[in-house]
Amino acid sequence: MKNYVLNNLPERTEKPRPFGVTMAMDKGLSVREVEDLMSIASGYIDVMKLGWATSYVTPNLEAKLAAYREAGVPTYFGGTLFEAFIIRNQFDDYRRVLDKYKMTYAEVSDGSIELDHDKKCEYIRLLSEQVTVLSEVGSKDAEKIIPPYKWIKLMNDELQAGAWKVIGEAREGGNVGLFRSSGEVREGLVEEILTQVPFEKIIWEAPQKSQQVFFIKLLGANVNLGNIAPHEVIPLETIRLGLRGDTFNHFLNQSK
Amino acid sequence: MKNYVLNNLPERTEKPRPFGVTMAMDKGLSVREVEDLMSIASGYIDVMKLGWATSYVTPNLEAKLAAYREAGVPTYFGGTLFEAFIIRNQFDDYRRVLDKYKMTYAEVSDGSIELDHDKKCEYIRLLSEQVTVLSEVGSKDAEKIIPPYKWIKLMNDELQAGAWKVIGEAREGGNVGLFRSSGEVREGLVEEILTQVPFEKIIWEAPQKSQQVFFIKLLGANVNLGNIAPHEVIPLETIRLGLRGDTFNHFLNQSK
Amino acid sequence: MKNYVLNNLPERTEKPRPFGVTMAMDKGLSVREVEDLMSIASGYIDVMKLGWATSYVTPNLEAKLAAYREAGVPTYFGGTLFEAFIIRNQFDDYRRVLDKYKMTYAEVSDGSIELDHDKKCEYIRLLSEQVTVLSEVGSKDAEKIIPPYKWIKLMNDELQAGAWKVIGEAREGGNVGLFRSSGEVREGLVEEILTQVPFEKIIWEAPQKSQQVFFIKLLGANVNLGNIAPHEVIPLETIRLGLRGDTFNHFLNQSK
Repeated sequence: MKNYVLNNLPERTEKPRPFGVTMAMDKGLSVREVEDLMSIASGYIDVMKLGWATSYVTPNLEAKLAAYREAGVPTYFGGTLFEAFIIRNQFDDYRRVLDKYKMTYAEVSDGSIELDHDKKCEYIRLLSEQVTVLSEVGSKDAEKIIPPYKWIKLMNDELQAGAWKVIGEAREGGNVGLFRSSGEVREGLVEEILTQVPFEKIIWEAPQKSQQVFFIKLLGANVNLGNIAPHEVIPLETIRLGLRGDTFNHFLNQSK
Repeated sequence: MKNYVLNNLPERTEKPRPFGVTMAMDKGLSVREVEDLMSIASGYIDVMKLGWATSYVTPNLEAKLAAYREAGVPTYFGGTLFEAFIIRNQFDDYRRVLDKYKMTYAEVSDGSIELDHDKKCEYIRLLSEQVTVLSEVGSKDAEKIIPPYKWIKLMNDELQAGAWKVIGEAREGGNVGLFRSSGEVREGLVEEILTQVPFEKIIWEAPQKSQQVFFIKLLGANVNLGNIAPHEVIPLETIRLGLRGDTFNHFLNQSK
Repeated sequence: MKNYVLNNLPERTEKPRPFGVTMAMDKGLSVREVEDLMSIASGYIDVMKLGWATSYVTPNLEAKLAAYREAGVPTYFGGTLFEAFIIRNQFDDYRRVLDKYKMTYAEVSDGSIELDHDKKCEYIRLLSEQVTVLSEVGSKDAEKIIPPYKWIKLMNDELQAGAWKVIGEAREGGNVGLFRSSGEVREGLVEEILTQVPFEKIIWEAPQKSQQVFFIKLLGANVNLGNIAPHEVIPLETIRLGLRGDTFNHFLNQSK
């Protein structure tokens, strides 16, 4: 299936991947751009997020979702859309929107709104009956620092409520939540989380290359990564395989 | 027309928009990429700039312009092209180029050349007889600081000379004119300008998201913004509507 | 051939260009995106690099290579792929891969591996019998500083071994080798190299606009530049011609 044989590459999980997942983000692609992306990256994208509420202003939304469906890539609406419905007391409308567009995944988050955590877990439980739920931990507000023990409790409670995986927030820019405003990873936080939450259950939002490299070096080729820009999916796959400068020697040294 | 109903969203002006304009920038799209962009964003782009003198080296220019025309999006050549003709004493040639390509808009600027302001206003007057004119204030040279009272006088004189709207210079990078080299907005300057020039008449070049957010928070969903990258038009529309994290709470608080 | 006449523009070499070469980088385009790019930029791209080992994970690789071939743009696999084969003692496999895909160019580099320089020159010699060789000098490791006299010796030895041109390393990000981590050019290094190596024989990797502007101001419209992102090829061509703000006055002052 690969174009030529290179010995001693790290093994990658195959679709449908239980872990080693790449979640990419569409923030306004046209139908033809989706087709282009699928022609090259459908094997490497496990789930596609239509970023925040871009689906609200996207023409031809049904055609776009169909293009992903045909390529075998499930989609979901970004968590900010869930929050936009919740803050307006329109949860039932939200469920109808998911039905209308035949969505099989959904995200529950509270990055922009205040949401009692029991209430959040209740939403996860309710939506789990309808779709596969990803839940997101972490605020979009750079001022709100969540201590490590709290990240752990939030993540485990949400998994128990029915979330398929929990997402560690970073935004499209990769500068909040798991990261300092410079984009640098909060390493101590990540390591502490990993003592209590299985790495297979966490999708780390890592839009910047340096962040992707950090997680791949820490957790291997099959770490779950999210918020990957469409044109960075192929580059990411090479980083996972030790075939780009950034991880070239990391994996070679391991296989010795 | 929108894909689902969300209550209490800020109202947006509709095309042809008297204000609330998005001016996007094409710096070398292919004809098919233009078609793709139009399929998704033609309702959100009010006018498209072919950046600086990219039209000089663009193959299939007529086909590209036709693709925009069919989608109902007017185009114009960037101000640097006007300046390239002026500095070579080829103003009549420039007018012929506008005719040849059936342009209905044009930009008059002096970002890279020295141009006596009466002379600039004369060009605005002359071109206004032929096309709709956008005029640009501000230098591309980071060293040239224009004091606020001068921005105001330049803008008002150019509007009086016939400019449809005046553009506040920022370059593609968003790091000169209205902005510090860091990309940060010169807030005092902006506020002083607004005491003397109607906000409907100004297009603020704001290529960076933080700049777009600044102007939308200051002036609302229907501020005129320019130099938007093609793939940022859909994201910008969500920021205008309070449907992205950056302005999510701003508009909610307003509607209370 | 150009869309209109502007007087006193710097002269550009024409394809096949002996120098004034633009090497662009494809890091995962779909076949249709390649067609789009070729429709607009085939006249300005002299050689296309399939970045590092992206070719390993690219579906439809033959179709993509064919699309470039039809447009008259030769391609080559990034140097990291060469190194991935070398470090695995699979050099013969690498030669077979070049044959299989009918490649006419190849890159020899040692950015991620330790490679005795005589051995590197031997690879250049061997591959020169099969294809046109580009060789690259400089490490991807920001810690490895090569002094100027060494850059010169390495470059001249590799040209003598049969390299068509030598490439000065900068990575996709433009932050190592010829550049400081900030992306700023090591000017003294560049000037010293130029005292001993003909400028026609060097391709400067310059992914950032400020780097492109630096080399064009130093060496003129027809400097060889590399690692140009697909959507920056048209903008680069305008910078070469003094038709973008950055070099607008530079070339005007020269023609006086």
